[in-house]
Amino acid sequence: MAAKKIRVILYGLGPIGAACARVLALRPETYVFVGAVDLDPNKVGKDVGEVIGLPEKIGVKISDKPGRVLARDAELTLHATGSYLTQVKPQLAQIIKAGKNIVSTCEELSNPWVQNPRDADELNKLAKQYRVTVVGTGINPGYAMDTLPVALTAVCQTVTRVRVKRVVDASKRRRQLQQKIGAGMTVEAFNAAAAKREIRHVGLAESVGLVARGLGWQLDEIIETIEPIVATRRIVTDHVTVKPHFVTGVRQFGRGLYAGNDKVILELEMAVDAPEAYDEAWIEGTPNLHSLVKGIHGDISTAAVVGNAARRVVEAKPGLLTMVDLPVVSAR
Amino acid sequence: MAAKKIRVILYGLGPIGAACARVLALRPETYVFVGAVDLDPNKVGKDVGEVIGLPEKIGVKISDKPGRVLARDAELTLHATGSYLTQVKPQLAQIIKAGKNIVSTCEELSNPWVQNPRDADELNKLAKQYRVTVVGTGINPGYAMDTLPVALTAVCQTVTRVRVKRVVDASKRRRQLQQKIGAGMTVEAFNAAAAKREIRHVGLAESVGLVARGLGWQLDEIIETIEPIVATRRIVTDHVTVKPHFVTGVRQFGRGLYAGNDKVILELEMAVDAPEAYDEAWIEGTPNLHSLVKGIHGDISTAAVVGNAARRVVEAKPGLLTMVDLPVVSAR
Repeated sequence: MAAKKIRVILYGLGPIGAACARVLALRPETYVFVGAVDLDPNKVGKDVGEVIGLPEKIGVKISDKPGRVLARDAELTLHATGSYLTQVKPQLAQIIKAGKNIVSTCEELSNPWVQNPRDADELNKLAKQYRVTVVGTGINPGYAMDTLPVALTAVCQTVTRVRVKRVVDASKRRRQLQQKIGAGMTVEAFNAAAAKREIRHVGLAESVGLVARGLGWQLDEIIETIEPIVATRRIVTDHVTVKPHFVTGVRQFGRGLYAGNDKVILELEMAVDAPEAYDEAWIEGTPNLHSLVKGIHGDISTAAVVGNAARRVVEAKPGLLTMVDLPVVSAR
Repeated sequence: MAAKKIRVILYGLGPIGAACARVLALRPETYVFVGAVDLDPNKVGKDVGEVIGLPEKIGVKISDKPGRVLARDAELTLHATGSYLTQVKPQLAQIIKAGKNIVSTCEELSNPWVQNPRDADELNKLAKQYRVTVVGTGINPGYAMDTLPVALTAVCQTVTRVRVKRVVDASKRRRQLQQKIGAGMTVEAFNAAAAKREIRHVGLAESVGLVARGLGWQLDEIIETIEPIVATRRIVTDHVTVKPHFVTGVRQFGRGLYAGNDKVILELEMAVDAPEAYDEAWIEGTPNLHSLVKGIHGDISTAAVVGNAARRVVEAKPGLLTMVDLPVVSAR
């Protein structure tokens, strides 16, 4: 098939946006970059290839004028500027009005009906009006704790409960992530920061909601809890040293309740002292299922999921959709 | 949502067709049966509920006149009459011309371009002409050795090889299945029957092709091999007794080659002496992945996959599609 290439505008070229863009650059038969937006003065005016770390320049310069770049002919915008919907909503609205489909790394956009139902409805309406598709995704939320367990239920006649545990080894991850999970803090400082929601993985409630959406469940309530994981030995990473009794990371639970029962239970551990990383799921139903996946890598796999979802977003019907609404996303 | 129910015609009510129908009957808010076809004189004239084992009659009688039943208003036909495409093609054509979407248990229909490309193209054209969607599915081919590993690659930036091993414990399965895998035969009788393709799991080549389709790979060749698994002890099931040195079941390999390299390697073991059933996959790429799923049950899960795919088939665009083209299939 000599199909027409999908023309892509890059919107946000921080570490995650750049990593996602590099995945699209691995598929030159499918995607071509036609514009790029970033507000960082160190990037504006530079070539995309140089900034995202491709072996050569590609002849597309980064601009700080979204309006001008979005006026170009393109099928897709790869959006990677923030985790919170209220923060990125004006950007999304501008992209939609420019008639571009959106695949975004915004965690809250993965299932915005959970925490921002009014914004979700507005964006959905706008996307339908401009006949574009909008999807937020990534490894988590977007795949490991929601889409994957939902896809596993294909083999079940009935499902009564979905339980998922994800353990992330943060010891070799970016400094920003190690800080985000509280590594090196005292328990008191962690608890204070967690109470202000300064420390937490964003997206667990969205994942609970995605599981429910995938299974057609109405939940009464979604409850999130957070606690520190405490070091029992001295741990040294490239970015932080954690002494015994200090915090190595975070354990979060997201629970989806219906009629007083836990229907969805998601447990996420992210620590610099996670001896083994894995993704485990238990589907209670007919039949019962157990799955164990090893090898999903936070940074590499987030970029992969976003890049792999891109063509499905372009093909999909207009509206604000989620990963459980898209055709099977795969590495192509 | 008070969505309109999907009206379903049942076509073929043997053990598998009946099991699939029971899954749809578990979702009365989504599906309603409006007709049923079966040629078995013991079933014709009887109520569907009685024949498929529902707790009560449903007021729909089984007919041996497909033309009359297909004239009824319906969105979907659940088709379960055979494994081979050439065998069921006239039935499929008749259903398509009656304007009904089809979800079928026909193994070769899961990816008919592999062994029957001309028939596949014809059915695809016909389906588009009549604006209906046609999908063949089941646990294998359709999910365990193809769609699931393809869905796992969502987290990979690149994939170089997909390797899958499925071990099925046939000791508690239907007599027909135990016979199909050669349980109780001598090695000589097994080899003679296998050479005539009388003993084999149908669909391994289709699964190899589905993996390639999901990853956008062109294969040069698909090679299937088959060998007996031989008993090292006496094994007794409800249907067969296997003495040492006799056959307990079958081991099949399906390999997809490109430029002399094994890109897809599927290994299927089905035996009455499989100590532990599981589905394992190794994705070689960036990153490498390993998955292990326990609990997928051949009969229960085939019916589940077919029943769960039904609503996706009705929603999908017209044409002959495969499981890797459909939105995430889940238990709802």
